[in-house]
Parts: sequence; structure tokens; C-alpha cells
Amino acid sequence: MRNVIYFEDIVPGSRQMGGTVTVDPDEMLQFARVWDPLPIHVDTAIAHKDMGGLTAPGLYLLALKQRLLHGLIAKPAVIASFGYDEVRFLRPVFGGDRLTLVVDWVEKRISTSKPDRGIVVHRLSLLDPEGTPVMSHLDTILVRMAQR
Amino acid sequence: MRNVIYFEDIVPGSRQMGGTVTVDPDEMLQFARVWDPLPIHVDTAIAHKDMGGLTAPGLYLLALKQRLLHGLIAKPAVIASFGYDEVRFLRPVFGGDRLTLVVDWVEKRISTSKPDRGIVVHRLSLLDPEGTPVMSHLDTILVRMAQR
Repeated sequence: MRNVIYFEDIVPGSRQMGGTVTVDPDEMLQFARVWDPLPIHVDTAIAHKDMGGLTAPGLYLLALKQRLLHGLIAKPAVIASFGYDEVRFLRPVFGGDRLTLVVDWVEKRISTSKPDRGIVVHRLSLLDPEGTPVMSHLDTILVRMAQR
Repeated sequence: MRNVIYFEDIVPGSRQMGGTVTVDPDEMLQFARVWDPLPIHVDTAIAHKDMGGLTAPGLYLLALKQRLLHGLIAKPAVIASFGYDEVRFLRPVFGGDRLTLVVDWVEKRISTSKPDRGIVVHRLSLLDPEGTPVMSHLDTILVRMAQR
């Protein structure tokens, strides 16, 4: 199968399934201690009282998403990323939760200045086992045309 | 001085300066290897050819920003975060670059359902020594009123 998704291959409205990860509570806590040591992420007593347990930093969910993106079998031929929009942390995530990456292709248009590439908007989400997103954002990327 | 910024203290249009960090090339590379092992972040030869050197993953810039937020002397009394908008990675960042956090207070409104809190939009940016942002995003948070 083809491992690179070129601009022409992208079908807005279609969905690509990614891998599933089980949130490692030790890695999550270590990440929080280094990057986002809020009590609800690093203080067991406060987190249990307020949230029912230690919760994942939003940044850690973005990191898990990024790692799962690298694990995709078929990946877009990205030249550059413009950035993220509508980044939403939709419910608390705990150690042991199982999360699955899904990629929803939203829209695409050919670059007017450089016709060998196009601008693509896709939505990246982490879903719980019921299929409900726990984190979601739009990502706008520049994607190469197929070699001809 | 007061270390907690309550809803009433926030003045839209004002700017709060945060700390400055020098990007540690070893930490940056280690982060990239774990979370975002793109060639421009982890492969010295490719990165030098394409970018002039190993570059910071966007996620690493978000992580540095988060760490600098925790270092602020005065912090908002955040109840919850709704998410990020307009996340932009504006130019490549390299090891050794010096980045300063700035917080721009954009708008605020009292919660209609719970009058002990308000919704606040602020822009978080990392600036280079010339004052040009290298990464910027909006962050919408729920902030407590002062205790009365």
C-alpha cells in the first residue's frame, strides 16, 4: 500500500483511523511534573478531591496525539504546518484511559502561488472507547502534490 | 504584592511580562525524539540542509510557554481552561535562542450562570530578543472573582 498521502489523495469528508494508546499514569505524571505542575495534574490528594484522580495536562494530550500521528501507516506529504485552531480539551483524562487517534479531512485547496502543493485543513481528535472526543483540534498544513 | 490575579484585576489591552528562557539544545532534541521525531527536529544533516540547524517542535514551544506560565509571579485564579485558538508557529526556533513569555489580556466577561467567575481571553506569546513573536496563541480561561 502507498505510505504517503499526497494532496490529490485527500478526500474532504473522509476519516482516517489511527492507533490506540493506553495512558501510562507514570509517564503522564512525569510529564506534568516537568511541564505543567498544576495540583490537579501532580498532587494526588487535591486531584482526587477535585477531579477523582490525577488528570492529564492538555499539553500531554497534544503530545500523545503527536506520537500517534507518527505511528500512522499512511502519512500526508507535509511541507509545513501553519498552526492549530479550535484546540479543545473536552473532558478530563486519567491514567489507564484508552485513546484512539482519528484524522478527519476537512477541506483542501491548491496553492495559488505554487501549484506543486496545496493547503489542507484536517481535524485531529483523540476518542475514548465510546467514540467521544476527549481532545480535538484543527491543523492546517501545506501538502505536496504527487510526483509526476 | 498580590500573587493572584482575580477577574476584577484583569484589564483588557494590558500586557504582563513573563520570564525569559534560553532554548537548551539537548532538552529540545530529547523532547523531539520522544514526541515529534520529524527529520527537521532530530536529524542533524537533514535539518542543517533544510532549516540551517535542528529546529524546535511546535509542541516543545507550547511546553516552554507552559513552564514559563508556571514561573509568573502573579497568576490568574484559573478554574478551568476552554482551550486554545489561533495557535501559530511563526518562525523556526533553534537551540540557544532566547525566548520571553508575554501575556496580553484581550477580553473578559462575567459568567451569566455563575457570577463568582468570568470568562477571560488572553494571548500567550513567546518573543525573540527583538520582540517578534515566534509562537502565539489565544487561551480562553474561567477566572475566579476576588474573595469578598
